[in-house]
Amino acid sequence: MSHLQVVVSIDSLDGAERIGRALVEARLVACFQVLGPMRSIYRWKGEIEQADEWLCLAKTTTARFDEMRERLVVLHPYDNPEIIATPIVAGHGDYLDWISEQTRPLAQ
Amino acid sequence: MSHLQVVVSIDSLDGAERIGRALVEARLVACFQVLGPMRSIYRWKGEIEQADEWLCLAKTTTARFDEMRERLVVLHPYDNPEIIATPIVAGHGDYLDWISEQTRPLAQ
Amino acid sequence: MSHLQVVVSIDSLDGAERIGRALVEARLVACFQVLGPMRSIYRWKGEIEQADEWLCLAKTTTARFDEMRERLVVLHPYDNPEIIATPIVAGHGDYLDWISEQTRPLAQ
Repeated sequence: MSHLQVVVSIDSLDGAERIGRALVEARLVACFQVLGPMRSIYRWKGEIEQADEWLCLAKTTTARFDEMRERLVVLHPYDNPEIIATPIVAGHGDYLDWISEQTRPLAQ
Repeated sequence: MSHLQVVVSIDSLDGAERIGRALVEARLVACFQVLGPMRSIYRWKGEIEQADEWLCLAKTTTARFDEMRERLVVLHPYDNPEIIATPIVAGHGDYLDWISEQTRPLAQ
Repeated sequence: MSHLQVVVSIDSLDGAERIGRALVEARLVACFQVLGPMRSIYRWKGEIEQADEWLCLAKTTTARFDEMRERLVVLHPYDNPEIIATPIVAGHGDYLDWISEQTRPLAQ
C-alpha cells in the first residue's frame, strides 16, 4: 500500500484542530499536525498580499486520499483551499503499517 | 501539467519575505510561505554547527522550476542555498489549477 | 544519485537536537532542521489525543537511507517513531552535490 503526506493551509489554529480531529475521527488520516503561524505571500486581484496562516501535515494512504480531499473541501473555510500531497517513498515499516491501520475503514 | 513543492532555507525573515515577494511578482511561484525560526544542524569545516534559519515553502510548476531556481540563486544571500523540490502527486484540482494560472507568464 | 527529504516527529527539542547531531556526525544526513512546537492530533487506544511535538526535516541520499533509519529507530525515544521520506526530484545542483558529499562514508 502506498502512503501520502498531505499539506493543507488554513487561517486559524482552532480551525486546523477542528478539521484535524474530524479527519482522524473519520479514519481519513492517521495523524494531523499543525505548525505556525507562518507568513503566506501570494497574489490576490493583481496585488501581492501577505497573511498569517497555519500549516497542517497529515498522513494517509493513496486509497483514502480522494475521500479525505472531498471531506476536507467541505470542512475548510476557504473557497479554494490548498490541499496537496507528496509521495512517501521510504520510511519506518512499523510506522507506515500504523498509517494503513489507522485509516482502514471499520467493518460495517 | 505537473506541480512542485519547493523548499528553501534562509537566515532571516526579512530576507525570506523579500525573496517571496520577488518570486510571486515574477510569476515564478504561486505562493510563498515562511515558517520559523527553526534550528539547523550541519557540518561546517569539519565541525558540527547550529544556526537559526527560516523555512520557506513555495508552489510552482515543473515548467517554471528552472527559471525560478536561477532567479532564486541570484536573490539568495548564501553561496550554496538549499533549494529542493518534491513532487505534488495529488491535490484539490481547483488549487492545482490556481498554481498553474498564477505562474503562467503574461503575454508580452 | 538520488536524494530524500526525511521527516521525523519527536516530543522534545533537546531530543531532536541530540538525534540531529548524532546523524550529522555519523554522516547519515547532511543537515537536520527542527521546527516547532507543533500540535499533533492522532488516535490512541480508541480516543483522539493531542500532544505537542517537534518536526524534524533532514536531507540524505537513497543510498544512506536504510542505515540512517536503523540508527534513528535506536536513538528515538518512541516505540514506533514517525520516519518517512519524500523524493527530491529537482533542486540547486551544488546543494544536491553537498548532500551527497556530506553523507559519503569516510574511507577507512
